[in-house]
Amino acid sequence: MNNEFSLGIDFGSNAVRLMMVNISNGEEVAQVAQLYTGGEDGVFYDPSDVNVARQSPGSYLEAMVAAMQLLKNQRELSDFNWYNIKGIGIDATGSTPIPVDEQNRPLASYEKFKDNLNAKAWMWKDHTSESEAAAITRLARKIRPDYLKFCGGTYFSEWFWAKMLHCAHVDSEVFDAAFTWVEFSDYIPAVLTGVNNARKIQRNICAAGHKGLYNESWGGYPDSEFLGQLHPGLAIVRETLPHRSKGVDQSAGDLCEEWARKLGLAAGIPVAMGALDAHVGAIGAGVNNHILVKIIGTSSCDIAVTDSHSLELPGISGIVKDSVIPGFTGIEGGQSAVGDIFRWFVVELLQRDERYHGELIEQGNELKPGQSGLMALDWNNGNRNVLFDTNLSGLILGQSLKTRDFEVYRALIEATAFGAKRIIDQLKSGNVSIERIICTGGIPHKNRLFMQVYADVLDVPVYMAQSSETVALGAAMIGAWVYLKKKDPGIEIFQLQEKFCKINEQVYHPVPENVQIYKQLYEIYLTLHDAFGTQGRGTHLFSVMKELLKIKRMKR
Amino acid sequence: MNNEFSLGIDFGSNAVRLMMVNISNGEEVAQVAQLYTGGEDGVFYDPSDVNVARQSPGSYLEAMVAAMQLLKNQRELSDFNWYNIKGIGIDATGSTPIPVDEQNRPLASYEKFKDNLNAKAWMWKDHTSESEAAAITRLARKIRPDYLKFCGGTYFSEWFWAKMLHCAHVDSEVFDAAFTWVEFSDYIPAVLTGVNNARKIQRNICAAGHKGLYNESWGGYPDSEFLGQLHPGLAIVRETLPHRSKGVDQSAGDLCEEWARKLGLAAGIPVAMGALDAHVGAIGAGVNNHILVKIIGTSSCDIAVTDSHSLELPGISGIVKDSVIPGFTGIEGGQSAVGDIFRWFVVELLQRDERYHGELIEQGNELKPGQSGLMALDWNNGNRNVLFDTNLSGLILGQSLKTRDFEVYRALIEATAFGAKRIIDQLKSGNVSIERIICTGGIPHKNRLFMQVYADVLDVPVYMAQSSETVALGAAMIGAWVYLKKKDPGIEIFQLQEKFCKINEQVYHPVPENVQIYKQLYEIYLTLHDAFGTQGRGTHLFSVMKELLKIKRMKR
Repeated sequence: MNNEFSLGIDFGSNAVRLMMVNISNGEEVAQVAQLYTGGEDGVFYDPSDVNVARQSPGSYLEAMVAAMQLLKNQRELSDFNWYNIKGIGIDATGSTPIPVDEQNRPLASYEKFKDNLNAKAWMWKDHTSESEAAAITRLARKIRPDYLKFCGGTYFSEWFWAKMLHCAHVDSEVFDAAFTWVEFSDYIPAVLTGVNNARKIQRNICAAGHKGLYNESWGGYPDSEFLGQLHPGLAIVRETLPHRSKGVDQSAGDLCEEWARKLGLAAGIPVAMGALDAHVGAIGAGVNNHILVKIIGTSSCDIAVTDSHSLELPGISGIVKDSVIPGFTGIEGGQSAVGDIFRWFVVELLQRDERYHGELIEQGNELKPGQSGLMALDWNNGNRNVLFDTNLSGLILGQSLKTRDFEVYRALIEATAFGAKRIIDQLKSGNVSIERIICTGGIPHKNRLFMQVYADVLDVPVYMAQSSETVALGAAMIGAWVYLKKKDPGIEIFQLQEKFCKINEQVYHPVPENVQIYKQLYEIYLTLHDAFGTQGRGTHLFSVMKELLKIKRMKR
Repeated sequence: MNNEFSLGIDFGSNAVRLMMVNISNGEEVAQVAQLYTGGEDGVFYDPSDVNVARQSPGSYLEAMVAAMQLLKNQRELSDFNWYNIKGIGIDATGSTPIPVDEQNRPLASYEKFKDNLNAKAWMWKDHTSESEAAAITRLARKIRPDYLKFCGGTYFSEWFWAKMLHCAHVDSEVFDAAFTWVEFSDYIPAVLTGVNNARKIQRNICAAGHKGLYNESWGGYPDSEFLGQLHPGLAIVRETLPHRSKGVDQSAGDLCEEWARKLGLAAGIPVAMGALDAHVGAIGAGVNNHILVKIIGTSSCDIAVTDSHSLELPGISGIVKDSVIPGFTGIEGGQSAVGDIFRWFVVELLQRDERYHGELIEQGNELKPGQSGLMALDWNNGNRNVLFDTNLSGLILGQSLKTRDFEVYRALIEATAFGAKRIIDQLKSGNVSIERIICTGGIPHKNRLFMQVYADVLDVPVYMAQSSETVALGAAMIGAWVYLKKKDPGIEIFQLQEKFCKINEQVYHPVPENVQIYKQLYEIYLTLHDAFGTQGRGTHLFSVMKELLKIKRMKR
C-alpha cells in the first residue's frame, strides 16, 4: 500500500503541473511545472483584436511529456519505480474548446491550418464571442428559458457554444473542417486513453454542465432544434456528442500503450474523467457540504457542493449536478476581479511596485472597520455574480481631503469581501448555507488583512488550504480515487480528503465588534450595489455618505 | 495727476499685503507682504480642538506697520514722496469678529486675557460654532424665515453671530467683557480713522450682509427679539451696531494723526470703508454685469454682480445689495474645495510632491472628454453651494483595471468644473446670466488643463486676470475711488476697472466638440449630485456606469 502513488496532471493557463502523491498517506511526494510553448507564455494573441486568446493543442502534449521528464530527473526520485503510479487524474482550464477531425486530431496540426488562430484551442479567456453569447441568451429566453436557469440567466461569451458559433460566423473553412469540438479537459483523457475516433470522446460533466448547457433535465446538451436555429452547423456538432457526460469518479479508460511509453508509466492504469481546474482545486482544498472553497487570485472562483438537487439560484454562474463531487450538486460562482483590483490600485494607479502591497497591508491593518469613511464597489472588471453584467465599473466614495492610500486599499479589500458576501447571501436564499470558508490561490497566504476582513465581513471562520497547489493535488486525488474504486467501489472522496487536504494552522476568526460594524457597512454596500447594478431598485442614496461619516466619527 | 497714488491694504489669512498703484494709469508701482506674528503663521490653534483658529488683532497692526516699512525700504521708492498717496482702500478676511471694549480696544490686549484664545480674533476658518449656527438656522426657520432667503437657506458656522453665540456659551467672562464685536474689515478702518468709541465703528455692508444677516429689507441686522431668543447678550450687542452699513464707495473717515505718523503718510487722506477680501478681489479682477469672477485656490469663491435687486437664489451663499459694487447686488458663491482636491490626490493619496501636478496636467491634457470613463463628485470637503451640506464626501466612479492617475486627476478637475456649472445654473435660474469668466487666484496660472476644461464645461470663454494680486489691487482701486469721488462724485468703479484691470492674453475658448460631450457628462454629474445630495430626487443610477462606458467607447 505504501508503494502506491497517484499522478495529478493540472493544465493551467500557461503551464502544466504534475503532482505525485502517496495514496496511503496523502503526502505530496513531488511536483513540477512546465510552460507551454509558442505565442507569449503559450498564448497566441491577435494584434488586431484584443479579445483573441488561443493556444496550441500540440503544446499541451509536449509540455506534459517535458514535465514528466522533469519529474523523472528529480534526484529524490532517481530510484523510484514508476510502475507504482496506479492512477492518473486530470484537470484543465475551460471552457477551452478545440476543433478536431474525425480521428480526434486537432485541426491545428494540419499543415493548411498551422497559422490559423481559429484552428487552435480557444482559450477560456478568449472574448471574441460576445455577440454570439448574446444571441444564445436571446434565443434561449425566447424558446428554451429553462436553459438559463442554472447559468445565472445569461450565456457567457467565454463558453463552449458561443465560441463555436463565433467560428462558424468568421471562419467557415475551420468550422466545416471540424468533425467536432472537444473541451481541453476531455481532449487530454481522450489522448491518454488512445481515443482515435472522435465519436468516442467522453465528455466530463463539469465542463459540459458549466459551459456547454448540458443538463440531464432537458436530455443532456441543448437540442438540435435550438442549436440549428443558431447555426445549422451547431446541430451537426450536437450529433457528435454523447448522450451522457461523466463525473470524475469514473474512469475515462486505461492509459494506452503509446502514451504509457511516452510517459514511462504502466499501460492500463486508470485515467479519470477530466474536470475544470477550479472545481478540481475545490476537491483538493476540501470542499464539502456547508464549506465554500474560494480560489482567490486575480479573480475569485467560489465552489460549493450541496446534497440538495432542486436548486434555483438566480445570478449564480453555474449549478450542475455531479460537476464537482458526483452525487452532489456543484455550484460555481465568483467575482470578476479580486487580486486584480488590488494590483490595479498599487501598480496602475499609485505607480508602485508589487512590494508596496506589504506597506498598505501593514497600515490598513491598523484601521478599524468604517474608520476611513470609505466605501467601494468591486466592479472594476464588471460583476460576474450576482448581476452578471460586464457593463459596470468601479466606484469609491467617502473621500475627504485627508484620505490616504492605505485607507483606499482597505476599502477595496472590503468591497471584494462585500461582493463575496453578496454571493453567499444568494446561496443562502437557495438554502445552501455556508459555515466555513477555505481559501486557496495566490492572495490568502500573502495578505492577512484580506483574510481578517473576510472573516469579519462573512462572519465565519476563514481557513487556508495548506497545499500551495490545491488544483494539482485535487487532480492527484481523483487519480487515486478511480484507482481505489476498482477495489472498493463504495469509497468516497471525503475519505481521501481526510488524508490529503491539510489546513494551515493560521485560522481567521470573526471579531464580534468588527462583525457588527461590517453589518452596517454591508447594508450601505447593498444600497449602492442595487442602485447602480439593478433597474428600479435602490433609491435611497441620500443617506449613504451621511451614514458613512457617522460610522467614521463613532467613538471607538 | 501723475503724482497721485493709492494704497491698497489687503489683510489675508496669514499676511498683510500692501499695493501701491498710480491713479492716473493703473500701474502697479510696488507691493510687499508681511506675515502676522504669533501662533503658526499668525494663527493660534488649540491642540484639544481642531476647530479652533484664532489670531492676534495686535499682530494685524504690527504687520501693517512693518509692511509699510518694507515698502519704504524699496530702492526704487527711495525718492518717493509719500504724501502723494491720496487714498487708502482696505480689505480683510471674514467673517473674523474681534471682541472689543467700549474704546474699540481688543480684549486680547488686556493682560488678563492675553492667553485666552476666545479674546482674540475669531478667524474665518474657525469651525467651533457649528451647533450655534444650527441653532440660528432653526430659530430663523421658525420665526424669521426671511433671514435665510439670501444666505442659501442655512446660517453657517463660520459667520459673525454663530461665533459670538459660541463665545457666550463657552466663555462668559470674555463675552461679558466685550462691549461689541467688530469684523476685521471694520476694525482696521476704525483704527486708521482714530475711532476710540466703539459705538462709532462703522460697519461695511459686505461683511454685514454676507456674514451678519444684515439686510435693509428687514431693517439692517437681525432684530433684538430674534437675537435675544438665542442669547440675551446678543440683543445687547445688537444695540451697539449702527442702523446702516456702508459700501466701499464711501469713506470711513480720514487718516488720523496718530496713524498718519505711524505709517508715514499724510493725515487727512480718505480711508475707504473696508470689505471682505474675495469681494475686493472681484473688483480688482474686473467684475461687472454678466461677468463671473472666480477666485480659485484651495477652494473657490465666485463673485458676481447684477443690477437686478429682487433676487431669490436658493442654495447660493450670499446675495447682498451694494456688497461688492454699490448700486449693484453682490452675489457670492463658491465651492468648499478646488485646489485642495487636486492637492489631496497628488500629495495625500499618491504621496508625490507638488511638482507631480505638472506631469498629470501634461498627460491629462492628452485625453478627450469622457475617454477615461470616469466621473467624480467634488465633495471631499462637503458642498458649499448649492447643497450647503458639510456631511458629504468625495466620489469617483467608472474605474477599470487600467485606470491611471492622470485620468483620475482630470476627472477631479472636471468634477470641480461641473460643480462650478451647477452654481452658474443656479444663477441662471434667478436670471443672472454669465457670459464670461475671469479667473484669479493660485490655480489658473499654473494649470492650463484646468482652464480648458472649465471653458469646455462652462461653455464660455475663460480669462485670467493679469495681476497676480487682484485683492490688493482691488483695495488700491477702492482707495483711489474714494479719493476721486471727492472731486467727481459721479465717477464709477467701472471707469477705474478699464484702467486698472488687465487681462492675460491667454484666453481659453470652448471647443465645440468638447462642449457637446461635457453636456452629456454634466447630466450624469447632476444625476449623481441629486442622488447623493438631495432627498427624494435622483433615482436613475442604473444607467450611470453604462452611459459613461458608452461615452468612453465612442469612436473619436
